[in-house]
Amino acid sequence: MPALPSLADCQALDAADPLAPMRDHFQLADDLVYLDGNSLGTLPKAVVARVAQTVETEWGTSLITAWNVHGWFDMPRKIGDRIARLIGAAPGSVVACDTISANVFKLVVEAMSLVPDRSVVLSDSGNFPTDLYIAQSALDTMGRGGTLRIVAPEDVAGAITKDVALLMLTEVDYRTGRLHDMCALTKTAHDAGALTLWDLAHSAGAIPVDLTGAAADFAVGCTYKFLNGGPGAPAFLYVRPDLQERVRSPLSGWWGHDAPFAFDLDYRPAAGIVRQQCGTQGILGMAALDAALDVWDGVDMHAVREKSKRLSRLFIDMTESACADHGVRLAGPRDPDARGSQVSFRCPEAYAVMQALIAGHVIGDFRAPDMIRFGLTPLYTRYADIWTAVTTLRRILDDRLWDRPEYKTRAVVT
Amino acid sequence: MPALPSLADCQALDAADPLAPMRDHFQLADDLVYLDGNSLGTLPKAVVARVAQTVETEWGTSLITAWNVHGWFDMPRKIGDRIARLIGAAPGSVVACDTISANVFKLVVEAMSLVPDRSVVLSDSGNFPTDLYIAQSALDTMGRGGTLRIVAPEDVAGAITKDVALLMLTEVDYRTGRLHDMCALTKTAHDAGALTLWDLAHSAGAIPVDLTGAAADFAVGCTYKFLNGGPGAPAFLYVRPDLQERVRSPLSGWWGHDAPFAFDLDYRPAAGIVRQQCGTQGILGMAALDAALDVWDGVDMHAVREKSKRLSRLFIDMTESACADHGVRLAGPRDPDARGSQVSFRCPEAYAVMQALIAGHVIGDFRAPDMIRFGLTPLYTRYADIWTAVTTLRRILDDRLWDRPEYKTRAVVT
Repeated sequence: MPALPSLADCQALDAADPLAPMRDHFQLADDLVYLDGNSLGTLPKAVVARVAQTVETEWGTSLITAWNVHGWFDMPRKIGDRIARLIGAAPGSVVACDTISANVFKLVVEAMSLVPDRSVVLSDSGNFPTDLYIAQSALDTMGRGGTLRIVAPEDVAGAITKDVALLMLTEVDYRTGRLHDMCALTKTAHDAGALTLWDLAHSAGAIPVDLTGAAADFAVGCTYKFLNGGPGAPAFLYVRPDLQERVRSPLSGWWGHDAPFAFDLDYRPAAGIVRQQCGTQGILGMAALDAALDVWDGVDMHAVREKSKRLSRLFIDMTESACADHGVRLAGPRDPDARGSQVSFRCPEAYAVMQALIAGHVIGDFRAPDMIRFGLTPLYTRYADIWTAVTTLRRILDDRLWDRPEYKTRAVVT
Repeated sequence: MPALPSLADCQALDAADPLAPMRDHFQLADDLVYLDGNSLGTLPKAVVARVAQTVETEWGTSLITAWNVHGWFDMPRKIGDRIARLIGAAPGSVVACDTISANVFKLVVEAMSLVPDRSVVLSDSGNFPTDLYIAQSALDTMGRGGTLRIVAPEDVAGAITKDVALLMLTEVDYRTGRLHDMCALTKTAHDAGALTLWDLAHSAGAIPVDLTGAAADFAVGCTYKFLNGGPGAPAFLYVRPDLQERVRSPLSGWWGHDAPFAFDLDYRPAAGIVRQQCGTQGILGMAALDAALDVWDGVDMHAVREKSKRLSRLFIDMTESACADHGVRLAGPRDPDARGSQVSFRCPEAYAVMQALIAGHVIGDFRAPDMIRFGLTPLYTRYADIWTAVTTLRRILDDRLWDRPEYKTRAVVT
């Protein structure tokens, strides 16, 4: 076993890291090791002033006229275009709106309408549960006897049979980080006559995504993880340009109308991606997200990915050296090319261990039943953070610091 | 014709008004006559600090732990209870979430599932269009051949036939202010075996509402009008307590799951109103709304209503005296008991006239095709504002100040 890197080794890596200066864009205490940016991204400093401006000046002073003079009404579409650049999508193919859950509902119904002779939605057990819940209720609501078929992640390719209308997958597994091959699976689906819906919750801002290159049909994603849009920030939704005019949203609210302020009694869908909008969007959340996206201007997703891989290799190597004797085991792929921007471990007493880590200023996530999960966010995660995290974990396990009643009481949100 | 009240007369009314001190809770320039609080309520001063705290302290410092330590996860339910008090609903029967459009979709599907042998949704042409669009697409999505039947507002009671599954109405007409009799129409619907869904967009915070007393089955509403929650603030949704366990939301996202953080593959609805939640809610918007609702603590909706009626009588009397010779005609009911908290007039060149009013610091709304609309928000509307509004309108009409090209160019949002 090679010697573990020292703190000085890690600090040297940080000193040579071209992305290191990006950390200055975020409000983040120097002694905090925040490895939960895949759950809630940290606060970009520019958001503070932007939200204050939106509240005090735009709302407070411009009042109703702000919808026009401050461009509120166009924000979902304009922000959608900013996200599009980060996920390999064409301008005009992404809109920021609603929640992932609502957007999955729209797109499952729309996809099923395009393949009326098929009835199966295929997904996997690594998908985030809300996508599965929503797909099932979309099928139930449609009442045409559709079936949600759930297979193991490794069995997906072989399960794309001729009865599959829609292949619905989350690209990066929220627990293990396992990465699906979007390009290959989309091609397999298309060859079998099926459409695809990709959930990019753990992809956008985490790994390079090329929706256009993969010819993906539909996608959704969230902006409060790697994109740092803030708690409950707007979700987004993608429809392949040539499909946009062929679908109508089941959530056909007035913001998707061709002329919302004509107040027609009949619905007439707007052209393009705008028809995927539904109701009035929360502008404070949009403003925060818009400011958060400023950080990404000029950032190359491939550089982000390279650093993420290095961070994850370091994390796995150090943890396996330092903590394997405590029963800590890598969960998910070892190969960084087969994993998103996170590392998860199975760990005895995982819940209490994570509470002890948090108490020690190392913030990650517990995921039931036995997983500790660490997000790697290269814009602000330092190599030295990995050193601190593993060293802290080792001390917690060595000294049984997790064995305290207050670390075993489950909170509502874990 | 009686002499018009003078500005001094109106100022005397303000001096005697027990609600007058409430205006201090809002950021509002003294020389601004803001009669558009039924479109976007003004900024409560307390919102500024609360949103800043949510961004800088809760998100910025507590990060992911804020979901627990700052109670973010419970906000939709707790805010729902605060709204419940204002609309005559029991605790645990209202949740703040999503948009009106999405909530209408949920409730139309749920209502139809409770009346499987009927297929008609009955509404009226005075409903806000998005409700009609959504009801139609809910029926289309369900694919069981349901029909949306739209009648004139005055014909609703007679149209509640035995094939009606759901009577879906907006209590206060967004254009004319005409008020439906929720109690009587709900009883008529129930007697005919139909359920009711009330849209309270122009009711909540505007007039006393008694959902419990009316035995209303379902309701939705928004919080960015009379409740001053901010642009695109969360909507709300009501389900009558005894119906809550009998319905399942078609938008069955993880926030409506009985144990969202168990990450089960199967959906199991939470007890009560929580099952109506869908995806992760925008917390900045929730925080702003929560602070905005502080203003309402201790406010008696009947006192608000009394002032609103007086303001509207004054507005109608003055306008008819001052502007009738310019073709300005009251739209909607004259009787304040038959009208919500707004006054609308049909007016030649209505769009340009409203632009001229706005330029003159009197802010109302244009509603197609020929209506100028003024919201009365008794927490901050002064009797003197009515005097200024009518006097300004008269001058614009007398001097044809509306006849300028820049007032005739339609903006996106009007």
